[in-house]
Amino acid sequence: MTKPIAGFIGTGVMGKSMAGHLLKEGYTLYVYNRTKSKTDELVTQGAVWCDSPDEVARQSDIVFTIVGYPKDVEEMYFGEQGLIANSKPGTILVDMTTSSPVLAQQIGEKASEAGLEAVDAPVSGGDIGAKEAKLAIMCGGNRTAFEQVEPLFACMGKTIERLGPAGAGQHTKMANQIAIASTMLGVAESLAYAKQAGLSQEQVMSVIETGAAGSFSLSRLGRKMIEGDEAAGFYVKHFIKDMGIAIDSADQMGLELPGLKQAKQLYDQLQKEGAGELGTQAIYRLYQP
Amino acid sequence: MTKPIAGFIGTGVMGKSMAGHLLKEGYTLYVYNRTKSKTDELVTQGAVWCDSPDEVARQSDIVFTIVGYPKDVEEMYFGEQGLIANSKPGTILVDMTTSSPVLAQQIGEKASEAGLEAVDAPVSGGDIGAKEAKLAIMCGGNRTAFEQVEPLFACMGKTIERLGPAGAGQHTKMANQIAIASTMLGVAESLAYAKQAGLSQEQVMSVIETGAAGSFSLSRLGRKMIEGDEAAGFYVKHFIKDMGIAIDSADQMGLELPGLKQAKQLYDQLQKEGAGELGTQAIYRLYQP
Repeated sequence: MTKPIAGFIGTGVMGKSMAGHLLKEGYTLYVYNRTKSKTDELVTQGAVWCDSPDEVARQSDIVFTIVGYPKDVEEMYFGEQGLIANSKPGTILVDMTTSSPVLAQQIGEKASEAGLEAVDAPVSGGDIGAKEAKLAIMCGGNRTAFEQVEPLFACMGKTIERLGPAGAGQHTKMANQIAIASTMLGVAESLAYAKQAGLSQEQVMSVIETGAAGSFSLSRLGRKMIEGDEAAGFYVKHFIKDMGIAIDSADQMGLELPGLKQAKQLYDQLQKEGAGELGTQAIYRLYQP
Repeated sequence: MTKPIAGFIGTGVMGKSMAGHLLKEGYTLYVYNRTKSKTDELVTQGAVWCDSPDEVARQSDIVFTIVGYPKDVEEMYFGEQGLIANSKPGTILVDMTTSSPVLAQQIGEKASEAGLEAVDAPVSGGDIGAKEAKLAIMCGGNRTAFEQVEPLFACMGKTIERLGPAGAGQHTKMANQIAIASTMLGVAESLAYAKQAGLSQEQVMSVIETGAAGSFSLSRLGRKMIEGDEAAGFYVKHFIKDMGIAIDSADQMGLELPGLKQAKQLYDQLQKEGAGELGTQAIYRLYQP
């Protein structure tokens, strides 16, 4: 079986690593990024630069996108120079941006009308997961399309799961972010309380992290809170984007999520105070008396 | 070194297991409980029944208490027939109830004035942890007093840590409960979202629990939410008690904890709907559309 020709649009921190894995596995790769210099390393490794997204679309059997916000996704897919208007019939369009489930469903419909396939496939695992090809990839779309992309996903991630039709990947990512949102408040509030009570935060952490209060957020990001390390593994501004999408999506489904709204509100406040470029653990700032 | 004589007051689900471990390790044990029948099994195993708390106090070198609410603790320690008025000089009073840090500090002071020692030592790990002697025991009090009780704690628990002076154990337990409170909202909201989006909750769980959204609450209690199992490992009514203490304590320290307050509010609502005797995972009920 010959390997499908791949396109990759959006070679930021995440995308660059992910695209690099495809190259290493021998896939022919066409790349585009708004800032051209961010594709330089990939081109050195053998990727072919394209001057526009539609050129990537015309060259590829499978096109991956991982861009910023839902509005960027919309433009990339629905614009005149966009992917749906310019892909060959049968092309599979794979959006790995964390974006709106409803938009993913719309892409699915319009792709289908144009004789294309669409898979939504947001990831979790961050820059390290991308670099080490250990991402969790949460997919929605037709099963056959998913199965054609699966070998390529396998170059980028460890947990690869199709959870349903178009939109299901984004919905799953939202469920992931919703769980994290309130947990982050719990972690920050717990450690702020411990400090205010005059306890050693390290010691409290060591006692509580292995029990019922234990979480990835506590052990990884709580530790950064204690150390005063605010550098971004995952940006506050991106987390706010995700929570906004989740709230909209829940609203559309008639679901009230007070914990999520509370978390969003606090992160909004944090961003207003200039912390959008910090890591999500910077929420701890709000609890400094 | 001869073993100290132990007293145990409060032989409910937790206390009975904990006291039983002391008996098994050969400690002489005097017991009291408001409902006498709940000491029957311990008496069969060799414990000596006392008709009142003060009788336990007079017989013991170390008295453990694990009762219901801070007001019960107050009465037990400060009442006319209470422990401080009736213990021999040098007795160590160990309150293992999850109770107010300020009350623990007051007990520490009054005990000291009376020539006694006090250790606050709330636990986590629930009925199973108590039964299997795998509790985490979070202690506050003088180091020398703590060290004298340590061998007895070791019969009941796995993680035994002194975190500071009187009140530090209770403060640590509060930090633990604060982390859990918001996390529970995140878990319930995440799974409610997944269901509302038409996804398989089991599949979403399997994808997200090993990543950044992972927590003890998600894997253990989230699973119970999915299965519709509302039976109490930890009661809603007790969690509400703990959150109330934590909020009061944070208020006294001038610390604002909006996530915790939100969680308390939702659990209050849940209890109003008659769910006080269910397990904390019953919070998921509030998210049924």
